[in-house]
Amino acid sequence: MQTTRQWQIDMVGPERKLAIGERRLEPVSSNRILVRTEAVSLNFRDRLVMETGMGLPLQFPFVPASDMAGVVEAVGPDVTRFKPGDRVISTFSPDWIDGRGLGDARTPPYKTRGGFYPGVLSQYTVLSEEWYSHAPATVDAAEASTLPCAGLTAWFALIERGGLKAGDKVLIQGTGGVALFGLQIAKAHGAEVFITSGSAEKLERAVALGADHALSRNDGDWVERLYSLTDGYGADHVLEIVGGAHLGQALKAVAVNGRISVIGVLEGFEVSGPAAQLLLKAPVVQGISVGHRRALEGLVRAVDQTGLKPVIDKRCAFEEFPAALEHLYRGPFGKVVIEF
Amino acid sequence: MQTTRQWQIDMVGPERKLAIGERRLEPVSSNRILVRTEAVSLNFRDRLVMETGMGLPLQFPFVPASDMAGVVEAVGPDVTRFKPGDRVISTFSPDWIDGRGLGDARTPPYKTRGGFYPGVLSQYTVLSEEWYSHAPATVDAAEASTLPCAGLTAWFALIERGGLKAGDKVLIQGTGGVALFGLQIAKAHGAEVFITSGSAEKLERAVALGADHALSRNDGDWVERLYSLTDGYGADHVLEIVGGAHLGQALKAVAVNGRISVIGVLEGFEVSGPAAQLLLKAPVVQGISVGHRRALEGLVRAVDQTGLKPVIDKRCAFEEFPAALEHLYRGPFGKVVIEF
Amino acid sequence: MQTTRQWQIDMVGPERKLAIGERRLEPVSSNRILVRTEAVSLNFRDRLVMETGMGLPLQFPFVPASDMAGVVEAVGPDVTRFKPGDRVISTFSPDWIDGRGLGDARTPPYKTRGGFYPGVLSQYTVLSEEWYSHAPATVDAAEASTLPCAGLTAWFALIERGGLKAGDKVLIQGTGGVALFGLQIAKAHGAEVFITSGSAEKLERAVALGADHALSRNDGDWVERLYSLTDGYGADHVLEIVGGAHLGQALKAVAVNGRISVIGVLEGFEVSGPAAQLLLKAPVVQGISVGHRRALEGLVRAVDQTGLKPVIDKRCAFEEFPAALEHLYRGPFGKVVIEF
Amino acid sequence: MQTTRQWQIDMVGPERKLAIGERRLEPVSSNRILVRTEAVSLNFRDRLVMETGMGLPLQFPFVPASDMAGVVEAVGPDVTRFKPGDRVISTFSPDWIDGRGLGDARTPPYKTRGGFYPGVLSQYTVLSEEWYSHAPATVDAAEASTLPCAGLTAWFALIERGGLKAGDKVLIQGTGGVALFGLQIAKAHGAEVFITSGSAEKLERAVALGADHALSRNDGDWVERLYSLTDGYGADHVLEIVGGAHLGQALKAVAVNGRISVIGVLEGFEVSGPAAQLLLKAPVVQGISVGHRRALEGLVRAVDQTGLKPVIDKRCAFEEFPAALEHLYRGPFGKVVIEF
Repeated sequence: MQTTRQWQIDMVGPERKLAIGERRLEPVSSNRILVRTEAVSLNFRDRLVMETGMGLPLQFPFVPASDMAGVVEAVGPDVTRFKPGDRVISTFSPDWIDGRGLGDARTPPYKTRGGFYPGVLSQYTVLSEEWYSHAPATVDAAEASTLPCAGLTAWFALIERGGLKAGDKVLIQGTGGVALFGLQIAKAHGAEVFITSGSAEKLERAVALGADHALSRNDGDWVERLYSLTDGYGADHVLEIVGGAHLGQALKAVAVNGRISVIGVLEGFEVSGPAAQLLLKAPVVQGISVGHRRALEGLVRAVDQTGLKPVIDKRCAFEEFPAALEHLYRGPFGKVVIEF
Repeated sequence: MQTTRQWQIDMVGPERKLAIGERRLEPVSSNRILVRTEAVSLNFRDRLVMETGMGLPLQFPFVPASDMAGVVEAVGPDVTRFKPGDRVISTFSPDWIDGRGLGDARTPPYKTRGGFYPGVLSQYTVLSEEWYSHAPATVDAAEASTLPCAGLTAWFALIERGGLKAGDKVLIQGTGGVALFGLQIAKAHGAEVFITSGSAEKLERAVALGADHALSRNDGDWVERLYSLTDGYGADHVLEIVGGAHLGQALKAVAVNGRISVIGVLEGFEVSGPAAQLLLKAPVVQGISVGHRRALEGLVRAVDQTGLKPVIDKRCAFEEFPAALEHLYRGPFGKVVIEF
Repeated sequence: MQTTRQWQIDMVGPERKLAIGERRLEPVSSNRILVRTEAVSLNFRDRLVMETGMGLPLQFPFVPASDMAGVVEAVGPDVTRFKPGDRVISTFSPDWIDGRGLGDARTPPYKTRGGFYPGVLSQYTVLSEEWYSHAPATVDAAEASTLPCAGLTAWFALIERGGLKAGDKVLIQGTGGVALFGLQIAKAHGAEVFITSGSAEKLERAVALGADHALSRNDGDWVERLYSLTDGYGADHVLEIVGGAHLGQALKAVAVNGRISVIGVLEGFEVSGPAAQLLLKAPVVQGISVGHRRALEGLVRAVDQTGLKPVIDKRCAFEEFPAALEHLYRGPFGKVVIEF
Repeated sequence: MQTTRQWQIDMVGPERKLAIGERRLEPVSSNRILVRTEAVSLNFRDRLVMETGMGLPLQFPFVPASDMAGVVEAVGPDVTRFKPGDRVISTFSPDWIDGRGLGDARTPPYKTRGGFYPGVLSQYTVLSEEWYSHAPATVDAAEASTLPCAGLTAWFALIERGGLKAGDKVLIQGTGGVALFGLQIAKAHGAEVFITSGSAEKLERAVALGADHALSRNDGDWVERLYSLTDGYGADHVLEIVGGAHLGQALKAVAVNGRISVIGVLEGFEVSGPAAQLLLKAPVVQGISVGHRRALEGLVRAVDQTGLKPVIDKRCAFEEFPAALEHLYRGPFGKVVIEF
């Protein structure tokens, strides 16, 4: 095994050339492992990086995408966590193992796969074993590939930071990849889930997945409906998946001393909301930037224990990556995955 | 003792008549205690309530102000926590003893002294013993009267919710009553304090009180100065004492996984800030609505143990209440207190 | 309604006379509610109190038992939380609403129902509304009556203090009332449950209830089996339901930085275990003394949301209380309940 | 620089030969740094390792001791955290950077310096930069060398796990290295410190260091004295530095919902105490096994900010290591340090 095929771009922006290239692999030395990619899960962010670079110091040819699942084919002499044949998934922030986030106020953390670090759309990679977690045993590679970013973001918000428990009321905004993981994770813990969407069809699918209450965004004041359904209590947890610009509805919906997790990929956006709600109800508003490897390992355990199956909207072949990217713009219900 | 003199208004708004009135006291029955007021500490909110009512269902004649210190003169037969002669302070939210805040999403907590409940500007009151905490032994009544709202707000933000520890970097915006408590509480725990102000003289006084670094708001980019002074790290805790409208500087200043406590009295204001900082650094942004009695009792212990002396800008006599109210608008350095 | 029938004793100890008596009820004034009892759940502690008094200052005639479910029949003029017809359950420590426990080091908390306060084995009671929580809507009165002590103890240990999450490994010692609640609560949160017992039949029933792994105490080194089943990881949470005297097995079984909740009713017993395990793995060992009303309300929400059905081993009629007490000594699988 | 002098033993046990040896240094490649040792701080554990091996797989010749301070003399090409001239301190568990402890239930964490990994009594070492933290700027090398084990243990117990705050009551058992750090750290956070000892002279020195109350172990029931001094409240935090065998006094002394940190080096000892105290007061009892690098970095910040000066009982020269070891058995008041 000496070379790998990979999707790559030569620059960011509209002029970029997206093509399949080939690259020589590093030796499987010290604590490195050779992994054969089986599936790559796409995120909206992957498009932004390719289109704008997001201010990151990319190296070209640049390989996009951050999340994959694969199989260990060989291990270096110092490797202790994996052996050939092990199924693995990548980590989004490879250097963040546990505890406090990296970076500082001046230079917030930015060293992620498919950004500062090369992406995962290669058939093979040779990287430190520290960059991987074991994959769950109960899902296929495509499903496993959705955990490192979308799955972990929802888990980190609701469980690692949020301490969600049975009977909690969880409000989830939307039906994208993170939102559906939020729904499934909340249900796996016995919570009561309220989901909002502008699409009646997506609300129906969310209810089929386990959501307790569907709140149509087209149907009058949905916060008032939440109040009615909860006897005024509100939501213990809100997953605010930012597409627009404001926290106003989340701050109205949140319970006293509740928690709003702000999730999203954005440049230039502002979050804003009424100070009175923030002061009187004293909720926590917390930005979420995916999570660390220890939490990902916890999510993997939970997936295997609870039988949670990630929701995949569309599976494409390796060669169909450009079409898969297009599909991201159509508001998929769940994830878009490339299978190798 | 059958009657008490008290400051009162007959309505809210510019037409209101502010005058000293007289009222008959309730009997000292069941778990009630008769308290002789020694000092009342004023807050900016007291003016807002008198001017606008803040949407609260006030009862007239309405007695303003929420924070007092006094002496127990008699106790009802079921009283167990106090005896005559005990020095006490009031609680801001009398029904909130510990744990989660009261109210719900539809009706956030609003039952506070000097608002829904009558205020404290009376020479005597007869109320449930549950509405009081013991006063600290090491400060006078005027100083003690500043704890229930301004002192507890800073304590709740930094200690009860914030878990501040020695060596933490704390950014405090301004030099009002809550800000100076924040400064003193942070220093009592061995933290490093950065204080911002537009007034060079106030910055000097803050440094004399123990602030480690003075950041003038008139002097270029003070967040950049904070970065320099902390080698880019930022602030573990930010006390954002809202007078204006946005969180932008606080979100830039906060450290990775740090904490911004939003404090203030406001109607109609919005909080807003850049989503990128909130997402990448994943801080907690938390509204603070004063705090519960158990935390106030903790603050009282801390004041006695550390020798912290609340900063009083101006002491006025009972009859000077109107002048004291005026002084609130002059941007006092610390608290304005009425002594009986 | 002016009188109530009740089970009562005239003294503690073997000489005591246990009989049905009659008592005049208090007026339904101020914040009191009149509740008609529908079911009372028994605990092993009820026997200890009747036999030894457990050092408590009991008032005679003493009414035993701490946990009940019933229906509100009338409310006093100041009642705000209930209305006639509401189904309610009692609270074990009526004064503990939320937050830190009551009492102090010299005088630990002891003011509980069926002890310092009169018990619940009366057909009617008139007490403060603060002493009750709403009952769950989805279980019958007998099932609801098991929540205030056995249910809340397991919930407080695993959820309120333990922050259990899906995928966690939970070791539960035994199959009594608290143990089975622990099993059901853990499963409702997606955890993996290991249960120990000396009875093959009880282990089978526990597995039927959802336990993932049955560890027979008669079958060699069950800690070693736990190690094998978890690839050496151990248990994130251990419910150590003390009947004997030592923590040794729990300390061996617990994962690094895991949690051991010590539960039980005991006089004179010692807890003990090897210091090396406590130091090297740095777990938390925490005594659990039931819990506060806010947590009980959380458990009620969880029961309704998840469909959890408390396990009742035996239902007896009001007149069969002496036989029900006997049944407590036979090691019931779940709870023993008196139905009115 | 190619060789280093070091203290070493050729086997464990009474037959061992302790001598100064010489060793060739590794190249300063990849992320390694060459550090010149300036001071080594000794712990009681160092004697145990040399005498018994403590069950660890030691490599011979074995270099003892775990804690040092020194200066970076050269850095490998991949080093990012240090530059030549930086003052550094070692970490006790080099692989534990943040978050959850390493190891598992079957094999608790044991990979520490001066044990599984070679010790620090060498004039030079070449090791990964990950194994070091920056030293505080305000203390000398001897003082800095006491932080990695004794200092961090007290900090981890009281601050990282304990969340100590001003006004808290802290009971510290003894006057050894960890105990005095506990005293100083607690005082730096505004706490009230109670210290126990059997030596009147040591109690006097502890009071001179800032302890608020000295409790002589020879002087009747010291727990009763603690009750009197705290009006029955007890201690929020207890540092139980295990030399003997039981938790009984700590469980009596601890406040309701307080915390007992169990600290020590022991083989074969049992911890034990009365179950009633553990159940009724529901404290946390937590083993402490030093701590992670992120917490050590927090302690370093705190030392610089608060001016805390570690207490050194005796300073010895490199050649005096055997005498310094002897001194450890004399119950030093603070630390014993080797200066190079």
